[in-house]
Amino acid sequence: MTSRAPIVRNEFRFTCPIQTRWSDNDMFGHVNNVEYYRFFEIAVAEFLTGPCRLDLMKAPVATFAAESLCRFRHPLSWPETVTAGLKIEHIGTSSVRYAIALFGEGADEAAAEGHWVHVFVDRDTQRPVPIPDAVRAVFEEYR
Amino acid sequence: MTSRAPIVRNEFRFTCPIQTRWSDNDMFGHVNNVEYYRFFEIAVAEFLTGPCRLDLMKAPVATFAAESLCRFRHPLSWPETVTAGLKIEHIGTSSVRYAIALFGEGADEAAAEGHWVHVFVDRDTQRPVPIPDAVRAVFEEYR
Amino acid sequence: MTSRAPIVRNEFRFTCPIQTRWSDNDMFGHVNNVEYYRFFEIAVAEFLTGPCRLDLMKAPVATFAAESLCRFRHPLSWPETVTAGLKIEHIGTSSVRYAIALFGEGADEAAAEGHWVHVFVDRDTQRPVPIPDAVRAVFEEYR
Amino acid sequence: MTSRAPIVRNEFRFTCPIQTRWSDNDMFGHVNNVEYYRFFEIAVAEFLTGPCRLDLMKAPVATFAAESLCRFRHPLSWPETVTAGLKIEHIGTSSVRYAIALFGEGADEAAAEGHWVHVFVDRDTQRPVPIPDAVRAVFEEYR
Repeated sequence: MTSRAPIVRNEFRFTCPIQTRWSDNDMFGHVNNVEYYRFFEIAVAEFLTGPCRLDLMKAPVATFAAESLCRFRHPLSWPETVTAGLKIEHIGTSSVRYAIALFGEGADEAAAEGHWVHVFVDRDTQRPVPIPDAVRAVFEEYR
Repeated sequence: MTSRAPIVRNEFRFTCPIQTRWSDNDMFGHVNNVEYYRFFEIAVAEFLTGPCRLDLMKAPVATFAAESLCRFRHPLSWPETVTAGLKIEHIGTSSVRYAIALFGEGADEAAAEGHWVHVFVDRDTQRPVPIPDAVRAVFEEYR
Repeated sequence: MTSRAPIVRNEFRFTCPIQTRWSDNDMFGHVNNVEYYRFFEIAVAEFLTGPCRLDLMKAPVATFAAESLCRFRHPLSWPETVTAGLKIEHIGTSSVRYAIALFGEGADEAAAEGHWVHVFVDRDTQRPVPIPDAVRAVFEEYR
Repeated sequence: MTSRAPIVRNEFRFTCPIQTRWSDNDMFGHVNNVEYYRFFEIAVAEFLTGPCRLDLMKAPVATFAAESLCRFRHPLSWPETVTAGLKIEHIGTSSVRYAIALFGEGADEAAAEGHWVHVFVDRDTQRPVPIPDAVRAVFEEYR
């Protein structure tokens, strides 16, 4: 396991706001743990379609999740607006690992943090392929 | 990371069937990665309310997720029936770690596997408390 | 509005079981109202891919929802198994209206009932087309 | 059925933005029909907790959905930001009917419209009670 030191907002160059929904809260009155991964997914999709300019449905390469992890530190709850922070933790030949954290409204320390590993595959053959150069260049920027 | 050897059904004494839903599939035509954690949650809830006889909403102890992880090996897709397998990987004073795997219909090797860590807390104070003896005894059985 | 007489199981020739999930329950402790439509969707998908033998993703015709409605009479709650009942209420040239009801475990009277209207369209042009004869024949059977 | 004339933004005094999520889209590449009700629910929750100043979990009265309906006219799709419009269509002794419409980004005509009926009940007895005066006054304003 990685260090449990507090993780703060300014560690992340890429951030995006996430509007929570009433139904994100579960019977315990907080955002359901599964939805944290939904928030991770939103951050990854915004990053890939934003700075990386990748068309998730039509590009010749597709991205497959290989692994994800989340550590839950503090609860999040509707109706707060959550901020997701994302940075690149590792760049391989055909895979990338994003470090992702979620921040409650007005909080500087992460409520949750974890990672997500994407493998780039050929959309037709589904076999791993090198990360496209243009995308790799953006990954380097956000490392 | 743990070994990547195939994980098979008979490693798990506790199993439960999961009916997939049309909407579990995402734009790529497979069960969305986030939903794998939903399936993990179903397995944990069935295990705690079944063999552990824990009332998730009213027992004096409540369970908080501290960490979860999933490695995605093969896609799952509606309309197949998935089987979740769960076993106890580690028992601490107030925390437990479940190893969980998901199996596609008719498949002996796991499509995905990971873990989920639960911390037992006092429902009122939200402070960690020892795992109740009756629950701990069941955890020992499923280790 | 239509009559509010009790709606009972044996009014429906097509039924399918629906496994509820812990997360279907919302902060009020019952299945969230939005999820009732998810259950309707499961019934419709099972009916179209089952008796109607329609490939929802590849058939030359696709189905678009035009309208749905649900009346909520009694709460449903995880962990009960719900049964959905479906029958054909109206068959038009290119549209069909399903009457759908949801029954709690062991209950003969519907917990909720409503309808769902599907329009058949050409998958490429997205323009309405007549319901295929083979599908129409099944609709007649389940009227 | 009610009239199918176009429904436009300025018919609604209460509006709220809804951030779509990648996973709101289904296998057909558009926001899943069930999620339209999720968006309705967001609008209702924002209206009740905003202008109506109602605490959904702790007020002595609780709100139960009795009926909802949606007509789907044009598809919505991630990543657009949707706007929900809400107005009061009918005020009864203990029930209210909201007219709700969803607008795609930059669109003046509704992509979908429908209604949602709420019954006010005593939180303890679950029996219908009159709409509280302060809430009724706000309903009158947004009629």
